Amino acid sequence: MNPDIPEESIRRLPLYLRYLNRLLGTGKEKISSQRLGKEVDVKPAQIRKDLSYFGEFGTPGIGYDTQKLVSELRSILNLDKEWKIALVGVGKIGQALLTYPGFKKQGLKIQVAFDNHPQLIGKEIGGVRIDDVSKLEQKIEEEEIKLAIIAVPSPSAQEVAETLVSSGVNGILNFAPCLLDLPEDIKVSYVDIAIELGRLVYYL
Amino acid sequence: MNPDIPEESIRRLPLYLRYLNRLLGTGKEKISSQRLGKEVDVKPAQIRKDLSYFGEFGTPGIGYDTQKLVSELRSILNLDKEWKIALVGVGKIGQALLTYPGFKKQGLKIQVAFDNHPQLIGKEIGGVRIDDVSKLEQKIEEEEIKLAIIAVPSPSAQEVAETLVSSGVNGILNFAPCLLDLPEDIKVSYVDIAIELGRLVYYL
Repeated sequence: MNPDIPEESIRRLPLYLRYLNRLLGTGKEKISSQRLGKEVDVKPAQIRKDLSYFGEFGTPGIGYDTQKLVSELRSILNLDKEWKIALVGVGKIGQALLTYPGFKKQGLKIQVAFDNHPQLIGKEIGGVRIDDVSKLEQKIEEEEIKLAIIAVPSPSAQEVAETLVSSGVNGILNFAPCLLDLPEDIKVSYVDIAIELGRLVYYL
Repeated sequence: MNPDIPEESIRRLPLYLRYLNRLLGTGKEKISSQRLGKEVDVKPAQIRKDLSYFGEFGTPGIGYDTQKLVSELRSILNLDKEWKIALVGVGKIGQALLTYPGFKKQGLKIQVAFDNHPQLIGKEIGGVRIDDVSKLEQKIEEEEIKLAIIAVPSPSAQEVAETLVSSGVNGILNFAPCLLDLPEDIKVSYVDIAIELGRLVYYL
């Protein structure tokens, strides 16, 4: 991570990667910044600038090699190694995440999962055994996990987050519809599907 | 929708709304563009500029009234009326969406849901009856639905999308990890949880 690169640029990289990953599936080998810009709603000049912080990727007049750009973006974003994730909360969203096929492609793996419902504890979903939430600290420390997903109801989210942080987690993806109050050095991202839909609605 | 407002600005509004919605839950009545900027990783001047396209919302030195800004953003984004949504695919993700409590707050309602599994058809989840996918066109036309969520496996996503569009849908949120090839006037948004996690990983 380089502090001279604007966070705005960093934030756009996964947007590019998301599109390019899908483009790979279609077999298209080249993409221009114009085309990419149109697809992700970013000005082509901005895309070229964002990528220029990390090196020279494109060929003027030809564009970017899709596969190469995907590899580079994955490397820039630290997605070229495997990341172990802790999942807390195995309700409907948690279960969907445990069987979500998209993680592996990004080098992400839910390694441990926790819940407090007796009928879930000990069960295996998507190849992951669900543990009692009382074992959370111990397991996360043992596995040296740094990344966690919170998918518990809002009233429990803050407490879960604090336990995660005290166990060594420093990046949290929060599905609970509430704010987390955590130390400044902990990175929190919020997933809000209603907001994604809101983005579409503006144009209807 | 005003064509003079940059798409980049529009794209940031839901980001602000997502944070402000959560802030409302904490009872905080005022927020400065500095604070908001820090929370959503956007420069305060950029936030003020984005909001200035729609009017004068803040008070210099005091900041924005949280509740008022939420209302204004909801109105700008057309989220102040109820939007009916069609859900196609009631697997794990679909079921999580049907019971997701965050839609209502944004004026979004899954009105109809479709699947092709006999054991799902006729069942009710989250108060929504699941219909056979063969009834998709008829139902969407009857209900005049413009917004749909695709949560089917990738190989079926393009065909489902085309059927949705021919039934009158013009905004699609796609959970299937593939690109959709649709007419230019159809707005498509992609949800990719792995990418959200990727965003965090950069900072770890």
